[in-house]
Amino acid sequence: MKAAVTSVDVWRTRQLNHDKDLLAVEEPLQLRLEYGDPSDRSTADIAVTMRTPGNDFELALGFLFTEGIVTDRNDIQTIRYCLQVKDVRERDNVVRISLKPGVDPGLERLKRNFFTSSSCGVCGKTSIDQVKQLCASVQNDYTFVAERVISAPDLLRKGQKVFEYTGGLHASGLFDKSGDLILLREDIGRHNALDKVIGAALEMNKVPLRDHFLVVSGRASFELIQKALMAGIPLVAAVGAPSSLAVELAKQGNMTLLGFVKRGNFNIYCGREHLKI
Amino acid sequence: MKAAVTSVDVWRTRQLNHDKDLLAVEEPLQLRLEYGDPSDRSTADIAVTMRTPGNDFELALGFLFTEGIVTDRNDIQTIRYCLQVKDVRERDNVVRISLKPGVDPGLERLKRNFFTSSSCGVCGKTSIDQVKQLCASVQNDYTFVAERVISAPDLLRKGQKVFEYTGGLHASGLFDKSGDLILLREDIGRHNALDKVIGAALEMNKVPLRDHFLVVSGRASFELIQKALMAGIPLVAAVGAPSSLAVELAKQGNMTLLGFVKRGNFNIYCGREHLKI
Repeated sequence: MKAAVTSVDVWRTRQLNHDKDLLAVEEPLQLRLEYGDPSDRSTADIAVTMRTPGNDFELALGFLFTEGIVTDRNDIQTIRYCLQVKDVRERDNVVRISLKPGVDPGLERLKRNFFTSSSCGVCGKTSIDQVKQLCASVQNDYTFVAERVISAPDLLRKGQKVFEYTGGLHASGLFDKSGDLILLREDIGRHNALDKVIGAALEMNKVPLRDHFLVVSGRASFELIQKALMAGIPLVAAVGAPSSLAVELAKQGNMTLLGFVKRGNFNIYCGREHLKI
Repeated sequence: MKAAVTSVDVWRTRQLNHDKDLLAVEEPLQLRLEYGDPSDRSTADIAVTMRTPGNDFELALGFLFTEGIVTDRNDIQTIRYCLQVKDVRERDNVVRISLKPGVDPGLERLKRNFFTSSSCGVCGKTSIDQVKQLCASVQNDYTFVAERVISAPDLLRKGQKVFEYTGGLHASGLFDKSGDLILLREDIGRHNALDKVIGAALEMNKVPLRDHFLVVSGRASFELIQKALMAGIPLVAAVGAPSSLAVELAKQGNMTLLGFVKRGNFNIYCGREHLKI
């Protein structure tokens, strides 16, 4: 059974104490469907979702039902962890759902024209290997002044026009080294807001975004870090909490990752040496 | 150009005034890729994302880049709205990206084994028709006592064990008519938390969940409403804001939808007649 919470090292402001912190665990869960007549069983990987471990079989069942792949609990013979995985660490990340003979999951309907996915970029990747695929690393020779990063979330919030009206939008903001807001985009999907920022930066011919940092209005997920790394952004500051996998990926990519950046406080999850405090 | 904000009717507590409210617009954006040699152009629908209209071409560009489908702005010839859509209202929801001849989008790599998606259920549906497909409606003969719904978010929050430690998790809670918490699940993905609740309810043989209501810790998206309707849940109370499409779908399904349910206040977006106040 995988844990839902994991411990990481953290630097906390203002006194900058080194401490332990607890993060929500984020790991991919792959749903593998087994179906067909007893004499001719087929297997299909139908989805990968980034989830917090716990109640994985319920998640599998709920997903199949709410997506209309099964219409009844009785369509399912067994739900269990798949033992046929490449890496033993992935064992609890692959759930195998075996349908009763004669139950048609209607996969052709789902498969139609489908290549990759959407608001949550990783949806489009069916194998856990792909999800964990190594992103580009940022160059290691950067420094930011902490005070400029700390004051950025307020600028982001002030610039959020649609949020002001609706109370319901995520934002991504790109800042230069001086802490000036260069690009701000809002969207109901956090990943869309970041894609819009990166798309705009590409149009401005600014990618890779070496001397810039990113502020995101909510939590830092694996996917936001993946997208930021693709664009070469060396520092990400999240107003909310990071996930376990976000911290892992940021470390791998030489990125500096801050969380809970609000009211003059922040936690540094990695890249402490790139921050002038 | 589509609007990012839309106006809806709302009942506000405590005095229960009828008023207008502004919601963040949520609509599907379909990305359609055109590629191949000049003599042999192909078209593929590669993704649908639920997004807030605005900066759609940046979103398309950022998505293609951060997903590794293009590696350079110069891989792309044109980005524009597709005019070949079935319904004129969908015109601004389909973006057509034309790659330069010779640029290989590597779709086979993306297509491999991929059926549906994940943390955001709708990702798995490539056509806007599919996204808007009519969900089941709930039966129209239900009533809930407002006081019991209002007090539920506090119970949800108190029950959120992982959030307490990490500050980083969404929750879905299922309550019975008396306002007692029956099922609570947490996850880094809001849709996963709800899938876990519905999966658990299926195991308990409680679906369709006629005499129950659902509380979600964050905003109410189209997808959460879709999943709730699939499980027959007649009332959803969100601590945060609903999206435009969430309200639209809730109305279609005879569901009662409340938003901003906190500190004794709430907005009713539809289903006022099912609530005893």
